[in-house]
Amino acid sequence: MTLGAESPRPRSYADAGVDIEAGERAVALMRPAVEATFGHGVVSRLGAFGAAVRAPGAHELLVSSADGVGTKVCLVRTGEEAAGVGRDLVHHCINDILTCGARPLFFLDYLAFARLQPDRAAAIVSGMAAACAAHGAALVGGETAEMPDVYRKDAFDVAGFIVGTVRDDRFLDGSLVRAGDVLIGLASAGLHTNGYSLARRLLADRLEERFGDGTVRATLLAEHLCYLQALAPQLERGVVHGLAHITGGGLPGNLPRMLPEGLAARLDPRSWPLPPIFELISGLATDELYRTFNMGIGMVLACGQDTVSSILAALPNAYRIGEVVGQEGERRVLGL
Amino acid sequence: MTLGAESPRPRSYADAGVDIEAGERAVALMRPAVEATFGHGVVSRLGAFGAAVRAPGAHELLVSSADGVGTKVCLVRTGEEAAGVGRDLVHHCINDILTCGARPLFFLDYLAFARLQPDRAAAIVSGMAAACAAHGAALVGGETAEMPDVYRKDAFDVAGFIVGTVRDDRFLDGSLVRAGDVLIGLASAGLHTNGYSLARRLLADRLEERFGDGTVRATLLAEHLCYLQALAPQLERGVVHGLAHITGGGLPGNLPRMLPEGLAARLDPRSWPLPPIFELISGLATDELYRTFNMGIGMVLACGQDTVSSILAALPNAYRIGEVVGQEGERRVLGL
Repeated sequence: MTLGAESPRPRSYADAGVDIEAGERAVALMRPAVEATFGHGVVSRLGAFGAAVRAPGAHELLVSSADGVGTKVCLVRTGEEAAGVGRDLVHHCINDILTCGARPLFFLDYLAFARLQPDRAAAIVSGMAAACAAHGAALVGGETAEMPDVYRKDAFDVAGFIVGTVRDDRFLDGSLVRAGDVLIGLASAGLHTNGYSLARRLLADRLEERFGDGTVRATLLAEHLCYLQALAPQLERGVVHGLAHITGGGLPGNLPRMLPEGLAARLDPRSWPLPPIFELISGLATDELYRTFNMGIGMVLACGQDTVSSILAALPNAYRIGEVVGQEGERRVLGL
Repeated sequence: MTLGAESPRPRSYADAGVDIEAGERAVALMRPAVEATFGHGVVSRLGAFGAAVRAPGAHELLVSSADGVGTKVCLVRTGEEAAGVGRDLVHHCINDILTCGARPLFFLDYLAFARLQPDRAAAIVSGMAAACAAHGAALVGGETAEMPDVYRKDAFDVAGFIVGTVRDDRFLDGSLVRAGDVLIGLASAGLHTNGYSLARRLLADRLEERFGDGTVRATLLAEHLCYLQALAPQLERGVVHGLAHITGGGLPGNLPRMLPEGLAARLDPRSWPLPPIFELISGLATDELYRTFNMGIGMVLACGQDTVSSILAALPNAYRIGEVVGQEGERRVLGL
């Protein structure tokens, strides 16, 4: 990946493909949206080497996660779509720590481009900032890099890091889940942020075709839903035994992560609807579909049989999709 | 960046360039090194959606930072070199929060490949884990992604996210720095993690030439030094007025970040030695050199005149490089 001698000898960092001024423009464009997310807990000013936030107290746990949005970034054309992947990333991270019962405290991002486009960087960050502000997270920092020899022409990638808090006696680690628990599935809005390398290849010729209210591409870009608002009241009630965020690896890869040893999840795949995008995805074995895509379920909640009705009544687009069963051997998903 | 119709129609996620089993092998290879970093404060098990760490108490601040290592990744050939950029990343992140007076609590990584190589991923993560363990950070989580349409052939990128703590009355935000303070520079080991897109281009033909104890490439890969161990005793003594980590933007871009409004830094560039690698970097204007590279200084410390001697006596490879002066207008660096 080092460059050949035929390249003209650079006389500046800009000649080598790194435009420091573009970086400064990007930061200036991001600043208002980012500062709008700062609550009273944020101690540092933007531009410091480290971002400081007051610690929540010794009875709290700090729950953290790192994520990306996969090759969904390759579908982005407009500024609004760039903001969309920024929101996707924050929602993905919030959902991950939500599975532990945690609420967001702060968020940082890493954004890297083949060639830094300040407008695009600012659009992505403004999307992240909007999602952070909507869910009580401070967007305290990040890094924007220009790496022409690592990223393909016009490509970019984005990663997010979140820290949230949960009182230690409300921390969910799967240990409350037991045989007989009911599994409730919360509908996804589409692929969320997984399986895009495959879906884009399958649909490469059809991206600009009309589909639903827009195009195939717009349908693929449907936002990764954030389940914080829907689930917070149920977490407060203390009726949630476990949560699994359905991302890379699908239901078979993620549902077992919330199960104690010796238990399995039995699902009935006819119990929930497939989002329309799956009408377009064909020619794959069922097993491959379930391992690659969320197949319409973005989050799974385990609860006792006595609370199923009240939880289903409170959640929009939620389905009773299966149950937890005793099962010899590895934790796994049955019935798909 | 979407693929043309001439690609054969994929029938699986693996056909689309995403090998879930390679991801699972990578995680299995990383696990022992990662778990070795877990101290008593880590509550969660590996494989959970979120990583949980006990909060440090309400008189503490949480100081966070996100970083990458730039195109230094393009120089990596061997497993040990891959581990080296893992250490680089952790050291970079630790230095950033150290400027606020904070010590590491936990670290997460984001690792993305064109094509996931489990051995390489494990080598990078083992380097990160070793650096985390050496400096008291738990490597609590991360994300490994395979994104063939975003990254160039054989390319990878790595980003790190750190959270540390500092007692609120020991938080450094530059407000202690005043006119008359002395600036002490701590030697860097080379380029650390900045300016590689330019240096690799300038030295593209010479990477395998003998230089010093090895090759030009090995010299370029010299590790980003971590200043935690050297500076912790000085932070304990309460003699540090401010710290600036010299990364992208060099001394002119970073030193002002620790100055209060109305102050400038006057440096004498003859007061410290240049690392050998700079003998090879020629043909650039002085201003461009200082804006792109650290030019031999990895960290700058501001202190009162009464403590200069004791600090210099305690720090290896430290130089008195300048002073803080009152100056109308923007915070900036003079004398370069």
